[in-house]
Amino acid sequence: MTRIIIDGLQYCKWSPEIFEEMRIGGVTAVHATVSYWETFRETVSNIATWKKMLREFPFRMMLARTADDIRMAQESGRTAIILGAQNCTPLDGDIGLVEILHDLGLRIMQLTYNNQSLLATGCYEPIDNGLTRMGRQVICEMNRVGMVVDLSHCSARSAQDAIEHSCRPVAITHANPSRWHSARRNFSDDVLRALAESGGILGLSTYPHHLKGGSGCSLRSFCEMAARTAEIMGTKNIAIGSDLCQGQPNSVVEWMRNGTWTRTRDYGEGSEEDPGFPEMPQWFSSNKDFGNIAAGLAEVGFSASEVESILGLNWLAFFDRSFSRQHCVGEFVG
Amino acid sequence: MTRIIIDGLQYCKWSPEIFEEMRIGGVTAVHATVSYWETFRETVSNIATWKKMLREFPFRMMLARTADDIRMAQESGRTAIILGAQNCTPLDGDIGLVEILHDLGLRIMQLTYNNQSLLATGCYEPIDNGLTRMGRQVICEMNRVGMVVDLSHCSARSAQDAIEHSCRPVAITHANPSRWHSARRNFSDDVLRALAESGGILGLSTYPHHLKGGSGCSLRSFCEMAARTAEIMGTKNIAIGSDLCQGQPNSVVEWMRNGTWTRTRDYGEGSEEDPGFPEMPQWFSSNKDFGNIAAGLAEVGFSASEVESILGLNWLAFFDRSFSRQHCVGEFVG
Repeated sequence: MTRIIIDGLQYCKWSPEIFEEMRIGGVTAVHATVSYWETFRETVSNIATWKKMLREFPFRMMLARTADDIRMAQESGRTAIILGAQNCTPLDGDIGLVEILHDLGLRIMQLTYNNQSLLATGCYEPIDNGLTRMGRQVICEMNRVGMVVDLSHCSARSAQDAIEHSCRPVAITHANPSRWHSARRNFSDDVLRALAESGGILGLSTYPHHLKGGSGCSLRSFCEMAARTAEIMGTKNIAIGSDLCQGQPNSVVEWMRNGTWTRTRDYGEGSEEDPGFPEMPQWFSSNKDFGNIAAGLAEVGFSASEVESILGLNWLAFFDRSFSRQHCVGEFVG
Repeated sequence: MTRIIIDGLQYCKWSPEIFEEMRIGGVTAVHATVSYWETFRETVSNIATWKKMLREFPFRMMLARTADDIRMAQESGRTAIILGAQNCTPLDGDIGLVEILHDLGLRIMQLTYNNQSLLATGCYEPIDNGLTRMGRQVICEMNRVGMVVDLSHCSARSAQDAIEHSCRPVAITHANPSRWHSARRNFSDDVLRALAESGGILGLSTYPHHLKGGSGCSLRSFCEMAARTAEIMGTKNIAIGSDLCQGQPNSVVEWMRNGTWTRTRDYGEGSEEDPGFPEMPQWFSSNKDFGNIAAGLAEVGFSASEVESILGLNWLAFFDRSFSRQHCVGEFVG
């Protein structure tokens, strides 16, 4: 049986070449983004595009609707795609669309992307409001239908509120501890501790803006950070969420940052001098590179079974608990 | 020349009978709501329905795109309809739709309705965040194209932020001072003073939940409240925004309160025991009743010309300054 490798977030310019790199890298499953600012209708088109792509590679790729689908991908030597949204814009403000999107295959949704959303405050807002009235309702609905609440790009208070309010464990699919590298997108030890205590999971990010030293961050430094994070959260609650955006033109990072919300230009984690995608660290630039991370984790002292957990089994266990329908017993705040 | 009467907000079950009552009541213009939680597409349908209705009564009704259109309505003995939205949901989260909606005739838009929106915090949220990043951008865009920023249903902080951020005067189309009647929808003297100092305007509401004593509120009490409000804001900065919802079934007030944001039932200003529309005060139940308010205002000491101002000329002057296109010199906060 080969190793199970699961990546908690990617948004590559998908192509047969990248699917082939997934095979070479032994990647079992990838959470793939279908929306940043897209409406419901646009998201449906993006899901349809994925289904078409997957149909073209039936022996290489498949859609994951359950954790068992990921096991099936492993057994048949394929890579499973878990569909997710990095914002709640696919809801079009309608709580009824949570179940509709789950029916269409969406399994993970962020409460917001950088800004204030209808559900929660983003990490770029100057004032941190936490969950909204609608946010509390939508989390209960996501809990019920089996859609993972993803706190990436949330504010600290929204993350804390959601961890507390959700009746199922939640995820931060792609971020790092801010104690290691201070960045709006990274999280404090307090949030990470609360996440772990609630049974939640953190996908460690290899995106340069989340790394100490940026693109030049060493594999050693990344893996030492993983070790320190495991001390805070436990080895079972950390995983990888690479945030790999391979092959995307800079127009895509502009869309991520500016979406449909501003008439001026927002540089997000970049700057006017450096507005594009950053260069990935040399030890992680494609789906072929998970072996580097595995070796690096072993190097800093993780046992072989811990490496397996962090590289894939922790995500698999989390998805086992997350994707099925279940009645929420949480409070409905009016 | 007949008196100019302008109502700052109505959402009636529009019909030939109500149009006839507008004629009898001598109503020159009414700001009519086309959206509470409707998307862009649904709002466009509602605007199209209005255009069809107006075409059916060419000698009775007309659309107002400018303040001069309101004068034309008066000269030709018609009633002008000013289209507005009580939420920012018609934007579908896209700042580019501000200008599109203005092109389609929308002249007034609330930043939010009770809840947190993409732009601002609503008066029913437990935590008051104020304007969001997108809210600041959208206000500048509304300023530019000539769309009135309506703060009704906003939180106190959002109102203060918007008054400060907007480079054109803003409105609270339908609310009362909370000093007179404490209600989430009413505003503090601090907000009202800031509104007046910025050249903004308040439409005094006759909706029972905004009235001291509810449906039993006397005309005298309402007009005394108007006099005290004039002391705070000046006679030129107050007007009428009746919030008349004549003929609507209770399913409509349920839609207003619950929209698409909750799976439970929210009673808003009502309660489980009293979930429907409240009964209007006996002195204002239709468009025929503006004469009662005029008489009541005179009774508490307003001069004849002040009564004319409050009943219509203040709105007209405000709309003169509001509906035309203009470049915003406000700061664009990134």
